Amino acid sequence: MPLAGEDRVKLHSLQEWIAGDLPSLEDEIDGLLRSELPMLQEICDHLGLGRGKRFRPTLLLIIAKNGERSTSDALFAAACIELVHTASLVHDDFIDQAATRRGLPTIYRKWGPSAALITGDWIYCKVFAMMTGREMDDATRIVARTVHSMSIAEMMQLERRRRLDLPEEDYLTIILRKTASVIEASCEIGALLNPDLAEHRTVLGEFGRKCGLAFQVTDDIFDYQGDKQRLGKPIGGDWREGRITLPFLAAWRVAPESERKELQDAVETAEDPQGLWPDVREFVMRHDGTAVAQETALRYAAEAKAAIAGIDVEPQRDILVNAADYVIARLH
Amino acid sequence: MPLAGEDRVKLHSLQEWIAGDLPSLEDEIDGLLRSELPMLQEICDHLGLGRGKRFRPTLLLIIAKNGERSTSDALFAAACIELVHTASLVHDDFIDQAATRRGLPTIYRKWGPSAALITGDWIYCKVFAMMTGREMDDATRIVARTVHSMSIAEMMQLERRRRLDLPEEDYLTIILRKTASVIEASCEIGALLNPDLAEHRTVLGEFGRKCGLAFQVTDDIFDYQGDKQRLGKPIGGDWREGRITLPFLAAWRVAPESERKELQDAVETAEDPQGLWPDVREFVMRHDGTAVAQETALRYAAEAKAAIAGIDVEPQRDILVNAADYVIARLH
Repeated sequence: MPLAGEDRVKLHSLQEWIAGDLPSLEDEIDGLLRSELPMLQEICDHLGLGRGKRFRPTLLLIIAKNGERSTSDALFAAACIELVHTASLVHDDFIDQAATRRGLPTIYRKWGPSAALITGDWIYCKVFAMMTGREMDDATRIVARTVHSMSIAEMMQLERRRRLDLPEEDYLTIILRKTASVIEASCEIGALLNPDLAEHRTVLGEFGRKCGLAFQVTDDIFDYQGDKQRLGKPIGGDWREGRITLPFLAAWRVAPESERKELQDAVETAEDPQGLWPDVREFVMRHDGTAVAQETALRYAAEAKAAIAGIDVEPQRDILVNAADYVIARLH
Repeated sequence: MPLAGEDRVKLHSLQEWIAGDLPSLEDEIDGLLRSELPMLQEICDHLGLGRGKRFRPTLLLIIAKNGERSTSDALFAAACIELVHTASLVHDDFIDQAATRRGLPTIYRKWGPSAALITGDWIYCKVFAMMTGREMDDATRIVARTVHSMSIAEMMQLERRRRLDLPEEDYLTIILRKTASVIEASCEIGALLNPDLAEHRTVLGEFGRKCGLAFQVTDDIFDYQGDKQRLGKPIGGDWREGRITLPFLAAWRVAPESERKELQDAVETAEDPQGLWPDVREFVMRHDGTAVAQETALRYAAEAKAAIAGIDVEPQRDILVNAADYVIARLH
């Protein structure tokens, strides 16, 4: 999705210290997203058009940097982390039957469900084949643990689809396993690759985890209230796709029993619950669901910063504090 | 699928030497196929009902065995290999929209496409998480290379669906990457785990690869001519699902141009090419497609046996020769 104004500036300032390495990161990603098969190459080219913000590899590179330029191992690992994220989006779009992603048709929509399934498998498998081939065994261990965690989150999400009384704990487990785990992995692998920060691996992992939680809660808030900084991102996607998120749960928690029953009945009797979106949004706003969720996001960002308070490696610590602020910046 | 009479006897004789370890293998598989999520556990239980012949882990255990009982590493790796195979079947059934597998409804049919996608992802990811967690880095490398190869084969197969003039070379590449690669990996990992056979890893890998090619060609033949040994396995599945296999290609190679054109036209104009199965089968039989494919399968089995002729570790060599014979036994 295109970034506008202030948001772009903030991301830019976050990436400034590693700006010289970002073109190499793109090369590394392009090098991995390549296939001898015409159809797969076509799909890779398409994926190359819809580049994300590279938030995860940015964190990895920042933490791993220990010299003038990022090492080839760091660039490679950063590319792998981005591709794990990409593969999960390709499979997600299939599960959600999403039509577009980053302003482009999804693989699912353009090439069909089988191609989306195989493309996701191929990216995951290629990452493992390349990482193990390069004998980055410790980093591979972290990535394996992460994708395992992500797959469990996917199943939890599917199992709990449109469950209005989802325990908040389940929501947190899902976003921990699905989003926070990858950001945690990025930070841990970064630490693993930097002799000056290796001893802080656990703490940096915690930073990533908390940052990731703040990141996902923020995204979930925007899906209710919109995001003036980002152009053209429609809202209501989570509800349409059956994901019950924190703004809804926070509203649900305080809403009177009669309203909850009314909404539950509406969902159960609606021919298509997607159509209830205007009512659901109004319900969430009326009960301050996004405001409560916002407190949660701010708390996670504060915990992320607190986690690394004891680390005295600069400029990394400062930049990471900046990163935590970036994650929640759009809330203000 | 249930095995009948002679076939069961042959498999039994192949597994005799490791028979005492097979219950532990099943325990290991059951232990991995377990989840805290009710829906995933339900799916695991379902997968547990439709057990396969365990051909791949059998080869691994035979090669790895170096003492009274299989080591826990060998049992664990054998379970992982079986699960990689299982995950690929879950995704395959989705791609083929298959209704049944081993006499039971497929995950795709019973729980839907999203659950099938996530279940396959979860099994793959769990295997990687467990293998790397156990620090079996060399075996993980082999498995990673294998699943990468399998995913490429899936895409090749999708890309070349119902392509009647598929080059035979492409067919061989597909079965090499999809089927032979896993059997090769089973043999290589077995060798890796056995000090007495580690030096023969490459040769044993070649044995597995050739055995795997013979295995798949044999299966492809049965899909045309039926298999009296196996009860209740319908034929024509490959054609229905758009897979062009060796019996067809062998017939296509020798058929007169007029017949090829006729068939090509029929496929292009048919509302549903699946309905052409009786004509296609007749075409293949008339041009001796299965007989030619049979020669190929026998050749691969002979090459598999030749590959290990120089290995002087018994009883392994004898049993592996037996295994190659088992693969093609049903052709006689």
